[in-house]
Amino acid sequence: MSLPDLFREIDPPQRLLMGPGPVNAHPRVLRAMAADLLGQFDPEMTDYMNEVMALYRPIFGTENRWTFLVDGTARAGIEAALVSMVSPGQNVLVLCFGRFGLLLTEILDRIGAIVEIIEVPWGEIVPLDQIAQAIERFGPKLVATVHGDTSTTMAQPLEGLGDLCRAAGVLSYVDATATIGGMEIAADRWGVDVVTGGLQKCLGGPSGSAPITISDMAAERIFSRRHVELGLQTAKPIENRGRRIGSNYFDLAMIMDYWSEKRLNHHTEATTMLYGARECARVTLGEGLEARFDRHAAAGRAMTAGLRAMGLIVYGDDRYRMTNITGVYIPKGVDGEAVRRRMREDFEIEIGTAFGQLAGKIWRIGAMGYNAMKHKVLITLGALEAALRAEGFQAPPGAGVDAALAAWGE
Amino acid sequence: MSLPDLFREIDPPQRLLMGPGPVNAHPRVLRAMAADLLGQFDPEMTDYMNEVMALYRPIFGTENRWTFLVDGTARAGIEAALVSMVSPGQNVLVLCFGRFGLLLTEILDRIGAIVEIIEVPWGEIVPLDQIAQAIERFGPKLVATVHGDTSTTMAQPLEGLGDLCRAAGVLSYVDATATIGGMEIAADRWGVDVVTGGLQKCLGGPSGSAPITISDMAAERIFSRRHVELGLQTAKPIENRGRRIGSNYFDLAMIMDYWSEKRLNHHTEATTMLYGARECARVTLGEGLEARFDRHAAAGRAMTAGLRAMGLIVYGDDRYRMTNITGVYIPKGVDGEAVRRRMREDFEIEIGTAFGQLAGKIWRIGAMGYNAMKHKVLITLGALEAALRAEGFQAPPGAGVDAALAAWGE
Repeated sequence: MSLPDLFREIDPPQRLLMGPGPVNAHPRVLRAMAADLLGQFDPEMTDYMNEVMALYRPIFGTENRWTFLVDGTARAGIEAALVSMVSPGQNVLVLCFGRFGLLLTEILDRIGAIVEIIEVPWGEIVPLDQIAQAIERFGPKLVATVHGDTSTTMAQPLEGLGDLCRAAGVLSYVDATATIGGMEIAADRWGVDVVTGGLQKCLGGPSGSAPITISDMAAERIFSRRHVELGLQTAKPIENRGRRIGSNYFDLAMIMDYWSEKRLNHHTEATTMLYGARECARVTLGEGLEARFDRHAAAGRAMTAGLRAMGLIVYGDDRYRMTNITGVYIPKGVDGEAVRRRMREDFEIEIGTAFGQLAGKIWRIGAMGYNAMKHKVLITLGALEAALRAEGFQAPPGAGVDAALAAWGE
Repeated sequence: MSLPDLFREIDPPQRLLMGPGPVNAHPRVLRAMAADLLGQFDPEMTDYMNEVMALYRPIFGTENRWTFLVDGTARAGIEAALVSMVSPGQNVLVLCFGRFGLLLTEILDRIGAIVEIIEVPWGEIVPLDQIAQAIERFGPKLVATVHGDTSTTMAQPLEGLGDLCRAAGVLSYVDATATIGGMEIAADRWGVDVVTGGLQKCLGGPSGSAPITISDMAAERIFSRRHVELGLQTAKPIENRGRRIGSNYFDLAMIMDYWSEKRLNHHTEATTMLYGARECARVTLGEGLEARFDRHAAAGRAMTAGLRAMGLIVYGDDRYRMTNITGVYIPKGVDGEAVRRRMREDFEIEIGTAFGQLAGKIWRIGAMGYNAMKHKVLITLGALEAALRAEGFQAPPGAGVDAALAAWGE
């Protein structure tokens, strides 16, 4: 790589990203991110921070005061939630129905939690009565799950989870990265204490900012471990208490102090990402949450109908499928990576590969955020038909697109 | 706050940010960040990742293979470096000459390290012979320091530090967030193992991405703790070894696997921030490192001369002052916050307050990245003169600007 190469202007191909995310950002989001920066304690900046808090409450389905951003990718939001809520040696129950359940256990292991897993085969979800029994048996301090797990395309039903946990005096945590802005998130109605998300899927923004909401009860537990940095202590020191949170960057007590009227300095807020997160929320609420959920449902319905009309087998349990991503088996004898390469090279369309036990067995095709659009679903199916044909699989010509078009309006 | 308020278009004031950072981003950086997103394993995306690696090597003054980005603010880079290099119970020696030295100790405490501090009064730096003695006495696994500490405006001299550490078989770490792109970073010549930075100061970008460089020796120590996520294990599992790193998000072994040809999935790379980091580096190398350091030095020289000509007392030791930020005492009887407010409200210029023991005693005035410009230094001094006059302090009219203008070209 020579310097002249390195110095070329940025100019990525205009590719249609129909994988499990990231997807193409809404153009308004990218434009908003070009706004000039502000000092982190400027009144206009703190106004924007307060607006972000207000904008994300309806998106999370909550009235929680503590609704804000963690500066990092969606995974940063997950780790911040878990390391701030869970102390070493505490019991945590994890629902595991795919790769991202495993990720929760992996993060919790590192925190020093004692993790009990309810595991179901990939493609299924965890029944509520199993959760109830495990709470009874294991006595966790926290129940943690993802909402939609893109690795299996399943969405865990969450109605009743919060009631169950609260009756047992247990906090609950949900990672909704893969569903937020595309399927309903109802933190308050579910009674879930902490929910995290990311911008790069149904919210139609770039990865790099993690919205989070925290109930008063969870905030109380987190603040019971509040410690103020030495460099910020003044003549009248603030009292430190409880077992210090294991990470400084992910210490939600400090981050909440930063997002509160106290404005206690912590990190330097990622202003451009905050502008982007704010615009994602404006686009989402401007469309209307119901309309947005309907659009994602129509896209998922059309994609599924189209794939089936092409003679392909859709992966997983119909009742619990996420609306914004569809798994589909790679037909016998077809080279899955060759098809993906044709999709990318001939049509500038990305579809997803799979992880772990599903690697090489299914593709994952997303329709999220700005890409959960009728024309993008139709174009993707048409391209897939051609790519499959080139790799020796004959789908009935035109059937996928026609079925999708019919299913979109159902 | 009503919804119509929330829905207003983003439109921050065009404020000149002459504080300790963040500063205004270079317009080219913001424009680059508007480029369309790519899938994280698309060949064009991984090309951009490789380019970022190559572009940051000269900026860090290194040929280290492992030169890449951590997805978070500068503080995320610090925590990633420390948590990946240091295991609980290991001895770490920290040089502490300001708030950010305290931050290193605070992060290390949470990791479970045994921290020994060499502390000097704020405004001074740590002499090399003290470091040598402490290494001898304490036998640390790591010596950690910041390069420039904006809280005191001092830059720790680092020539010889690496030799000292390597002779003793000790790794070394430097946080260069406040100096990278403005003062020389010479990782290889210093012999320092790991250096981290941020975009939001002399590199002229937004906060939210942390460049890092890692020597082969440090990488070896980090890889000795490599564990692969359960969800990524395939039929032929990769061997896990050593004591697992305490954080998943900041596990540099996994992040290096992601930035290597293996492309093992970890987080979803913050593409837009990566585009921004890439453009920061292109702007920096396009100007030329020497020219850029000279420009920052001229800005610091002019600012210091101007402040002194106004009858103000500059903070700290002249020999070790950072070129890109100047501390200045608030004159007796003047309300420092009232002056800052006038600067902001009448001139749309931000200057910095101070932390801890310097709070209320000094202002910190930066000239960094896109703002280390002659006209911006002059405008700031002229505005400060007027704001001080309005608050009852009479500087000789015009003297600050004239002195700065003369000093710029020296």
